[in-house]
Amino acid sequence: MNIEICLSPALFPFYNTNKQATVVVIDIFRATTCMCTAFTTGVNSILPIAAISEAEKLKSQGLLVGAERNVAKCSFADFGNSPFEYMDEKLAGQDIAMTTTNGTQAINLAKGNDKILIGAFSNFDALANYFRQRKQDIILLCAGWNNHINTEDTLFAGAFAEKLLSSAPYKYTSDAVRIALALWKQVKNDIPAFLSGSEHIQRLLEHGLENDIRFCLLRNSSEAIPYYDHQTQTIRNYSSY
Amino acid sequence: MNIEICLSPALFPFYNTNKQATVVVIDIFRATTCMCTAFTTGVNSILPIAAISEAEKLKSQGLLVGAERNVAKCSFADFGNSPFEYMDEKLAGQDIAMTTTNGTQAINLAKGNDKILIGAFSNFDALANYFRQRKQDIILLCAGWNNHINTEDTLFAGAFAEKLLSSAPYKYTSDAVRIALALWKQVKNDIPAFLSGSEHIQRLLEHGLENDIRFCLLRNSSEAIPYYDHQTQTIRNYSSY
Repeated sequence: MNIEICLSPALFPFYNTNKQATVVVIDIFRATTCMCTAFTTGVNSILPIAAISEAEKLKSQGLLVGAERNVAKCSFADFGNSPFEYMDEKLAGQDIAMTTTNGTQAINLAKGNDKILIGAFSNFDALANYFRQRKQDIILLCAGWNNHINTEDTLFAGAFAEKLLSSAPYKYTSDAVRIALALWKQVKNDIPAFLSGSEHIQRLLEHGLENDIRFCLLRNSSEAIPYYDHQTQTIRNYSSY
Repeated sequence: MNIEICLSPALFPFYNTNKQATVVVIDIFRATTCMCTAFTTGVNSILPIAAISEAEKLKSQGLLVGAERNVAKCSFADFGNSPFEYMDEKLAGQDIAMTTTNGTQAINLAKGNDKILIGAFSNFDALANYFRQRKQDIILLCAGWNNHINTEDTLFAGAFAEKLLSSAPYKYTSDAVRIALALWKQVKNDIPAFLSGSEHIQRLLEHGLENDIRFCLLRNSSEAIPYYDHQTQTIRNYSSY
């Protein structure tokens, strides 16, 4: 079983050569962390949408809507892009819609593939167990920031690749995997120091979101395995696997 | 003065936001190493061309032509893409044309920018001295492999960024720079071990090109500062700077 890492959505057409591979969309700060949290809270489904206008329309039709652009919550929305907002009990059993700067865009990009999952440090072990049992080729798709490569998604990809490689039968040939693994090895013992000057950390700190940063880097707060359901065009949670 | 790193040609449109920045094109294995070597041998100019058909036409017009695709020398060409071929004394004073799988394509991509230089481990210190004296914003453009990120160009970018940052007034904010620096720090004491399984090393070894690998990783075999001259559309060597 092969591991590939795509470090930016703009590179996806060049890395997505194996349509049988399961795509794992990663947006650590903060969309995919929010999604894992929402399913832990008991959300029924998440409709990922690209456009703000679509989100506003769904809100006016009575749906609960999460919407964020450039770190800030959109004024019309029920929730922004902070995982703490997705711990609200009123979300249990609900179908919601969500749009974020990078994360939901990356999900839309991967829709041509049969299998799409959602990954974050929040569901790290649950996701690793899924792949250990299912033995599927995997492409880790980093959402990045406006097609720029970012530190936090790359770090997750390196950490997750290391985890899978430690359990047969996963392997890799890709240089992108080699780079992410070496990066992870270099910084894993002091992640906060490495990330402290990074681009997105600066943006989050400017908005006073220290707790979001901490939560997004915390492992295994969730047992969710969110996946994209092509039939309903929503993200749902595997109840068993 | 700002340092930016673009890890794949496909990402260049997103990273090339500062048109005042000097673009340094990097294709360690082996195009930019060959170019540095050619100028050390005394080549007068190199015409970088994208298409094989154009290279064949120029050859039939009597020009010396270097042409490579997927590691192998094209049959009609005078030279392939091995730096040792560009040590041939018959090259001294000549105007030549060159096309390679990734390197010349990356140069063509950067033509919209005013200043384009050629970087390799071969001219590492000469290039670093140039930037120390000229104090220009810099984008290190990694040629990669068919728009995939590769280890050797990323490593060079990390090494070169470290070199410039050690001399004021260079700085960076980019996550791509942060990643390349951490990678370089992790592997710089054992580069051959890190590269040994990498994609392009495998391709070169299959063609028996161990010596090319060794030469391409060797620092300061050249004092050349190759630059793209917009007027003549050729790469030339700064005689003084």
